[in-house]
Amino acid sequence: MRLVVVAGSTQTAAIDGISAAGADADALRHTPSADLEILEYGEPVRSPVVPVSPTGCPTPAVATRAVREHVGFDVTAVDAGLARPTGAPTVDLGDEPGADIRDVDPVPNAERLFERARSFAAGLPDDELAVAETIPGGTTTALGVLTALGERPAVSSSLPENPLDRKRRVVEAALVASDLEPGGAAGDPVEALRRVGDPVLAVVAGFVVGATETDTRVRLAGGTQLAAAAALARHAGVDTALSLETTSFVADDDSAAVHGLADDLDLTLRATDPGFEQRDHPATNAYVAGEAKEGVGMGGALAMAARDGVSMATVRETVVDLVEDLLATRAAGEPQP
Amino acid sequence: MRLVVVAGSTQTAAIDGISAAGADADALRHTPSADLEILEYGEPVRSPVVPVSPTGCPTPAVATRAVREHVGFDVTAVDAGLARPTGAPTVDLGDEPGADIRDVDPVPNAERLFERARSFAAGLPDDELAVAETIPGGTTTALGVLTALGERPAVSSSLPENPLDRKRRVVEAALVASDLEPGGAAGDPVEALRRVGDPVLAVVAGFVVGATETDTRVRLAGGTQLAAAAALARHAGVDTALSLETTSFVADDDSAAVHGLADDLDLTLRATDPGFEQRDHPATNAYVAGEAKEGVGMGGALAMAARDGVSMATVRETVVDLVEDLLATRAAGEPQP
Repeated sequence: MRLVVVAGSTQTAAIDGISAAGADADALRHTPSADLEILEYGEPVRSPVVPVSPTGCPTPAVATRAVREHVGFDVTAVDAGLARPTGAPTVDLGDEPGADIRDVDPVPNAERLFERARSFAAGLPDDELAVAETIPGGTTTALGVLTALGERPAVSSSLPENPLDRKRRVVEAALVASDLEPGGAAGDPVEALRRVGDPVLAVVAGFVVGATETDTRVRLAGGTQLAAAAALARHAGVDTALSLETTSFVADDDSAAVHGLADDLDLTLRATDPGFEQRDHPATNAYVAGEAKEGVGMGGALAMAARDGVSMATVRETVVDLVEDLLATRAAGEPQP
Repeated sequence: MRLVVVAGSTQTAAIDGISAAGADADALRHTPSADLEILEYGEPVRSPVVPVSPTGCPTPAVATRAVREHVGFDVTAVDAGLARPTGAPTVDLGDEPGADIRDVDPVPNAERLFERARSFAAGLPDDELAVAETIPGGTTTALGVLTALGERPAVSSSLPENPLDRKRRVVEAALVASDLEPGGAAGDPVEALRRVGDPVLAVVAGFVVGATETDTRVRLAGGTQLAAAAALARHAGVDTALSLETTSFVADDDSAAVHGLADDLDLTLRATDPGFEQRDHPATNAYVAGEAKEGVGMGGALAMAARDGVSMATVRETVVDLVEDLLATRAAGEPQP
């Protein structure tokens, strides 16, 4: 199995109270680059940021890496517009980060990104692919896209208390700036991406379209951002089966309504529970308390572990080991910026 | 084990009669990009070129990929200055292809490439790394570097008849253009790289220096180009143990004098024989006839197969299967440029 992880940035993440990914604004910009390094090497190698929050909550990339150490799946990272350099190998389909969706034209290259990703996916020889995302602020842009398409306007959050009202106000302002009504981009996914989306969603949606055109089975490895990508693919005419593989943290979050989204969009939903409440450690406790929840393919990776017979107890211990190593690395002052 | 494959281009390859990698000038420019795709996906996905010569000789990337399908080692591809886009994920350390070494300043960014690679290697968490190259024309630039450093001026060739006289004339012209004597860059590896080298050698040499500085064991996976990288590292002050893992085709090529180079540079030489004479197929026959010989980590991959207990008969059959798939892909007209 190949997991394609699409990484990028949007200035939307800098809006106060939107995202928990990263301790401050600079950390936010580095997080996707560091996530790719953790997936590839097990730790940051070039990024100066170790994505573990002050409360000890690690990036979900750690859970995906933990599964990879036992299952050994391939990872292909895609740069859809990173704000900071990464030491991980990437396929470069992007040009630049997305702007704040309250700007008129936050993703001016949406069509090019969509078409590049479609062509890239169509050329891959795999029979089956999983696709995931890492972009701080991505649930807000996902809410923008769902709203613009006229789909159920509900998304998850990396914060324990989902700031949905705040996100909705941002999306309302974004729609006004682009002179769009809710539902005004129905049937026009590129318009939704360009006006209220982000570069990662543009690449993931194009990727899903290209993969399904060539009869590749697609697993959407993530939560409501991947559901928004599925909505974009549906509005582009994709009517084949798609599965959404997420974590129990997203599935149990009533504010996210991922079950409703999956029903609306005809997605087979699979939620995997890593049983973090059975392991008392700041990393696992943070997820139990509702932090982070999903991202960087965590739900899809947990599903792979389950299919491969790797126990969740094994995954939990590897998560704890990786986090301890990350914190030791940070304490040692490495890596250097 | 992680295999780091450094890919790039030099205009030196366009000199008539220098390189066999690729059927024509345009194919030459695409070959490293296609090699990386074959390593990652088993076939080209974005490159319009299928690197199998008119006589049926496949790129050595096929042998490395064949081993990878059984051993499952990690590949990290580095773009040191590709002339054409690749659909494989890459760590981007380069800026542009190298110029013809008969120009005054063919690799003006040699120092930056060297330092970037040194820093990248020093940051990797691996205890052991293999490093390899893919750059058409690379044996001529390797000859240039060996000559400028005052080392034994002998290199291998991807052609059955090594055009050593032609390469020596090119190197003589290159030295004259840069006002350098043979041995004139001894102790100054960056000067040798800048005046008569190529971007891939700059990155491989910097990588070896950075890895050994952090006590990472380095396997040089290749032939005389990797020996030239070792020479550069030695002239940069590296005195730790280094091993050179190549194919029997290079080791048996008297014109290449790889045994002498290994002695001079204090490298442990390991040559692995894939037994291609035991399999009658245009792909294996071409190597037996002296074509290609080595590249893209082939010798290092064969050594990994041997260490892992994968038989050379298994490797041979996988090579033949991959080549048949590549030729079928080309016949079907895929991938599209």
